[in-house]
Amino acid sequence: MTLPLVVRSAAALRRRLARGQGDIGFVPTMGALHAGHLSLVSRAKRENRRVVVSIFVNPTQFSPDEDFSTYPRDLNADRRLLESEGPVLVYAPSASDIYPAGFSTTVKVGASLGSVLEAVFRPGHFDGVATVVARLFALVGPQRAYFGLKDYQQYLVIKRMTADLGLPVALTGCPIVREDDGLAMSSRNRRLSRGQRSKAAVLNRALGHVAALAASGEASAARLRSAGIDALRKVPGLKIQYFELADAGTLAPIRRLDKAARVLAACTLGSVRLIDNRPVHPAFARAVPRLLKGPKNV
Amino acid sequence: MTLPLVVRSAAALRRRLARGQGDIGFVPTMGALHAGHLSLVSRAKRENRRVVVSIFVNPTQFSPDEDFSTYPRDLNADRRLLESEGPVLVYAPSASDIYPAGFSTTVKVGASLGSVLEAVFRPGHFDGVATVVARLFALVGPQRAYFGLKDYQQYLVIKRMTADLGLPVALTGCPIVREDDGLAMSSRNRRLSRGQRSKAAVLNRALGHVAALAASGEASAARLRSAGIDALRKVPGLKIQYFELADAGTLAPIRRLDKAARVLAACTLGSVRLIDNRPVHPAFARAVPRLLKGPKNV
Repeated sequence: MTLPLVVRSAAALRRRLARGQGDIGFVPTMGALHAGHLSLVSRAKRENRRVVVSIFVNPTQFSPDEDFSTYPRDLNADRRLLESEGPVLVYAPSASDIYPAGFSTTVKVGASLGSVLEAVFRPGHFDGVATVVARLFALVGPQRAYFGLKDYQQYLVIKRMTADLGLPVALTGCPIVREDDGLAMSSRNRRLSRGQRSKAAVLNRALGHVAALAASGEASAARLRSAGIDALRKVPGLKIQYFELADAGTLAPIRRLDKAARVLAACTLGSVRLIDNRPVHPAFARAVPRLLKGPKNV
Repeated sequence: MTLPLVVRSAAALRRRLARGQGDIGFVPTMGALHAGHLSLVSRAKRENRRVVVSIFVNPTQFSPDEDFSTYPRDLNADRRLLESEGPVLVYAPSASDIYPAGFSTTVKVGASLGSVLEAVFRPGHFDGVATVVARLFALVGPQRAYFGLKDYQQYLVIKRMTADLGLPVALTGCPIVREDDGLAMSSRNRRLSRGQRSKAAVLNRALGHVAALAASGEASAARLRSAGIDALRKVPGLKIQYFELADAGTLAPIRRLDKAARVLAACTLGSVRLIDNRPVHPAFARAVPRLLKGPKNV
């Protein structure tokens, strides 16, 4: 095995891609890769003749008080991890390659998708995400692109943008990959202290508790929400940012669980922000399997 | 000659385009066609095997106090005019075809382009324009698209958006087509009363006066601007919205005319809003022709 080839500019990327042929699968990342990213690469490898992994810590999706400058960056570690997946092309551009002088376009997704949950706590975040993904799609020209469902709202925003602008890219949302104790894999987990790390799995447990209550017959979103929040409140030092049940397609808040929905949460442990989510199904859905269907690929 | 074929939906457009082959030239319009539009179609016909003309009065580029509901619409008159240019495909969609349920993406161009001149008097206008053009490009899939330079700022906004999002469409800005007295052709001109119509040509004369002063050596933007405004002030009933000298590429205001620039103006006569613009060159540029170069195609 050899380390994957890295190109640093859009021009080099174009030259390299022009030399090969076959469908391109694309996995956009901010680096600091983990098993969650590798699951996306693995899926992309199965479905495409060529795979491009971008590694770009996009400044426009961080607000001034966020962790842009301290976000973990280690290109060599990322390349070593990717080696196990077989040949991929790594595109690790500079900011000036993605945003050349004069760049001044923003892609915004509105409606509830662009205004609830993460958007409340990270103003402007999804504008940065939608814009950089539209730009990366144009530079890479993939047939398919792969996103982790840990960032569920991000996936819906990108799906909306791709459909609305008619971009010729098929999107796949891939299942969340978790640590043994259930914590969703995230580049930010490595910043948790040992004590924080032992507490972090409560987030997934609280989501699971809500899903189990729903499956056993509880349909009031308010009561389901309270149950999840109660579970989190038992953990000292954990601060809840949101814990909500929402329509699985639009993320509009729901009052009753009368079809497949999503429960989504964000909290902080010290300076580390954690998010997670999972599907919730109403109890009667067990007997009527077609009601279980959420949006495609989710 | 026969009237051009009209398709009413994106699905019908796709079917029709799938049957033919060869490059597609695209002329997006709001209908109420005149000789200015026909010059775009004619250029598109020369440079492409197939030409699509869209006719869509886009609601999102009108603000609530503007003339969306009264904007002139006459599809049959438009088809008869197009007949003279030879075969084209007319795409005249409904609003729900362009903005299907759930559509919620906006493309914004920022920096000075998106905030000066027209953007001041028509808040949100260019967001509507950039978004509908991005969407139309995706639906039509042209190799080339043609825009009239009467809407100079619009052309720069679309160029910026196309470059920033990496859309694979080559843009051409086409010269302003004028009436015999110099008035720039516009669908809105038909709303001028006979008295207003006789006054309207002053706009082009004022711009020409400024260009002539510049060519004869005046380089102060403030004095050039005053001269233009003085010319317009002589016309009773004409209200100036803006009259500015600006960088020809960014539309940032200039103080001295030290390279090729643009003079742009907007005014109203009664309820009719008129805009016009033209290049201005510093006097010394005559001796040094390469200084005359503005942005490509402009």
